[in-house]
Amino acid sequence: MKEFDTIAAVATALAEGGISIIRVSGDRAVDIVDKIFIAKNGGSIKNMKPYTMRYGNLVELENKDVIDEVIVSFMQGPKSFTAEDVIEINCHGGVISTNRVLGEVIKAGARLAEPGEFTKRAFLNGRIDLSQAEAVIDIINAKTEISMKAAVEQSSGRLSREIHSLRERLLNILAAIEHSVDFTEDDEEIDPSVVKSIDNNLKRFLVDTNELLDTADEGKIIRDGLNMVIVGKPNVGKSSLLNALLNEKRAIVTDVAGTTRDVIEEYINLDGIPVKIVDTAGIRDTEDVVEKIGIEKSKEKLDKADLVVFMMDSSREINEEDKEIIESIKDRKYIVLLNKVDLDKKLDDIYIENLQNKVEVSTVTGFGLDALKDKIKEIFFNSKLDTESIVVTNSRHKQALYRAKENCEIAVRELENNAFLDLVSIYVTSGLRALGEITGEELEEDLVNKIFSEFCVGK
Amino acid sequence: MKEFDTIAAVATALAEGGISIIRVSGDRAVDIVDKIFIAKNGGSIKNMKPYTMRYGNLVELENKDVIDEVIVSFMQGPKSFTAEDVIEINCHGGVISTNRVLGEVIKAGARLAEPGEFTKRAFLNGRIDLSQAEAVIDIINAKTEISMKAAVEQSSGRLSREIHSLRERLLNILAAIEHSVDFTEDDEEIDPSVVKSIDNNLKRFLVDTNELLDTADEGKIIRDGLNMVIVGKPNVGKSSLLNALLNEKRAIVTDVAGTTRDVIEEYINLDGIPVKIVDTAGIRDTEDVVEKIGIEKSKEKLDKADLVVFMMDSSREINEEDKEIIESIKDRKYIVLLNKVDLDKKLDDIYIENLQNKVEVSTVTGFGLDALKDKIKEIFFNSKLDTESIVVTNSRHKQALYRAKENCEIAVRELENNAFLDLVSIYVTSGLRALGEITGEELEEDLVNKIFSEFCVGK
Repeated sequence: MKEFDTIAAVATALAEGGISIIRVSGDRAVDIVDKIFIAKNGGSIKNMKPYTMRYGNLVELENKDVIDEVIVSFMQGPKSFTAEDVIEINCHGGVISTNRVLGEVIKAGARLAEPGEFTKRAFLNGRIDLSQAEAVIDIINAKTEISMKAAVEQSSGRLSREIHSLRERLLNILAAIEHSVDFTEDDEEIDPSVVKSIDNNLKRFLVDTNELLDTADEGKIIRDGLNMVIVGKPNVGKSSLLNALLNEKRAIVTDVAGTTRDVIEEYINLDGIPVKIVDTAGIRDTEDVVEKIGIEKSKEKLDKADLVVFMMDSSREINEEDKEIIESIKDRKYIVLLNKVDLDKKLDDIYIENLQNKVEVSTVTGFGLDALKDKIKEIFFNSKLDTESIVVTNSRHKQALYRAKENCEIAVRELENNAFLDLVSIYVTSGLRALGEITGEELEEDLVNKIFSEFCVGK
Repeated sequence: MKEFDTIAAVATALAEGGISIIRVSGDRAVDIVDKIFIAKNGGSIKNMKPYTMRYGNLVELENKDVIDEVIVSFMQGPKSFTAEDVIEINCHGGVISTNRVLGEVIKAGARLAEPGEFTKRAFLNGRIDLSQAEAVIDIINAKTEISMKAAVEQSSGRLSREIHSLRERLLNILAAIEHSVDFTEDDEEIDPSVVKSIDNNLKRFLVDTNELLDTADEGKIIRDGLNMVIVGKPNVGKSSLLNALLNEKRAIVTDVAGTTRDVIEEYINLDGIPVKIVDTAGIRDTEDVVEKIGIEKSKEKLDKADLVVFMMDSSREINEEDKEIIESIKDRKYIVLLNKVDLDKKLDDIYIENLQNKVEVSTVTGFGLDALKDKIKEIFFNSKLDTESIVVTNSRHKQALYRAKENCEIAVRELENNAFLDLVSIYVTSGLRALGEITGEELEEDLVNKIFSEFCVGK
């Protein structure tokens, strides 16, 4: 294990709750907390057995004034989250009490942990690999049970094992190349059966890699949610749709801290798929005041959308505004939602006959909402969402897999063009390295740091 | 100990964090969690030793699918928060993961805990009294270190001991009355020395009770914060004042969930005193639109204020609006803040010469802010805030103390009017009962329930 200093941070959400946990990790964790903890039974925590707890008072370092009643637990490295000695202090869950306890732990000699530093240590100490570390944050951020399940799978190392097995195959190919290069005289031709075997193995590798890559689009949606933007002129029923969708089995969720309050974004749980619904209604409404900004914002939202839901009022005639919107979405993945079908129809089909994915709804009666959901699933999910097989959910992993695939495709091409095996070997090595980025074995330190810096403090 | 069913709730703040805790309390806590926990070492948690932890997977009750990696800890009653058997499950701190784990605990047989029910059990099981239970919530809600310290003191039972000792003294008085009534013949006069002694004891009781009551005004502010409303016509610098005060050592704070977002309320930490600053600027600004509602809201805010800060622009002449405000605050505790003293003075002193507590400031240069703070402390705190002595922070306790005092004052009066000792005894008994309400010994069940229902779930 590497040598690190001892770090501390609040590991629970920092808001008012019954209990908060301050986690302290590192060689000096026990010594540091021992200075500011007085057990009810009077004993020191230095002789604490692993996986036991002590009840007592957390006190000020200097004058031993009681700060809070706490329970201290001890997990001895390597059997802990960070694989280091970990002390967790359970204190009262107020903002002040939590910060007071953390402050005293810092005074007693710990350093305030950086964002993601606990998980980073688990990685650097070799307890988990990078994709497992990333899964920790995915579990915490999971928006639905399916996202959570995928993250738990990844955290348990299922993807890592698959990547290891893929790497193993490339390593075997490299060994075969090296062997035949070493044992072939300069003027001799490489044994064609060896070349054929390498070719076959690379192709088999590509089949499996492509299969994994094919899961990435679904995977991205499972992890990050489907970004669905509702557009339409005023009063077609955009907000009613949002409410109708939210009222059914509302899944989530608190706003993520830091997002602007103006933007109306809600998650719904669509049979396990997290769908982030962005209502542009607010943007349109402010158009009069600052028209330009409004349009900019709308466009920005549209550009980020995985799916545009264009809502029309079938009880009104089509107008210029509708046509403008049609123009702006026609190259996107979209659904045309014909609302107010419970009223007399005035919308002339001729204008929309070339549009696909039309769904009739009534946000008042609830008619058509299930058809809308089926349409969304039809567009994004080929079949029933498969939660049993391995899914690539992280776009960083997807990119790395894609690079592995590209390099091995070139290797096959070169091989079939009778290139030198040394050249083939270079591409296979690049593929190997790309796979290693997923598990973190082949990732530069600053990239690793970047990944963990996107975690929050306390994780 | 009484018989209760087994309850469960999320004990940490429900937001995204590294760890969440699901607390399960009751006779069946171990059995219930045992059904859905598979330890990494394979063992059952039924043989777990108190104050130890186990690492493993929390699984679905039915098909044993893994929900999350967790650590389970066991605190055996009566040595636990509720004085019952308690299992705490530390899981990943996401909203979904936390709710999934809680959901499975409920499926396995626990009942979802009501708000404050854990703390209520600690009370009903006799581990803590009512004032200590209330202190738990005060610790969690504490806005500054001083509020926290007062709450920790109360939670440790310091106020309870004081109340017990006061009750003890009333019980002794009652015993003395009973004794002399029993041992005095009907036609005999009560021994005057006994009456004198009862009188003296009641008076000594009143001195100490009054001393305790005298702390209640400060105590309320320590606990709930000082409610300070800033008023003034537009553009005198109200928001700048708010910012200037907030920028210095900003103490807190998250909005309390459920408060309307329109209302601009912030806490500052004024040498340990939580001061809630209510800026009426927003209200005044919307006056044009819905003037009546604006004024209603302003008035409501003013009525609730402990302190009104009336801000004037000393570089402008006084106008009708200023005069109106002066009229509305003159019977309140107020401070007149003369802002913009860095500019040429145009304000004529004659209009404000009868006003007290004038402080000159410049929110631009920061001049006078310390004088403002000193003035606030001068108005509300007789001397330096005393955190060593017992302070009554809870207005429920204050009211009960006040009733105890009133009853004993009547008892003294009756005694000195030569009333029958039986009558005196009735008043002393009422006083005794009032004190018992503080610790919960003499409070009816529905009132107890009401107190705990104001807690949040998980506490």
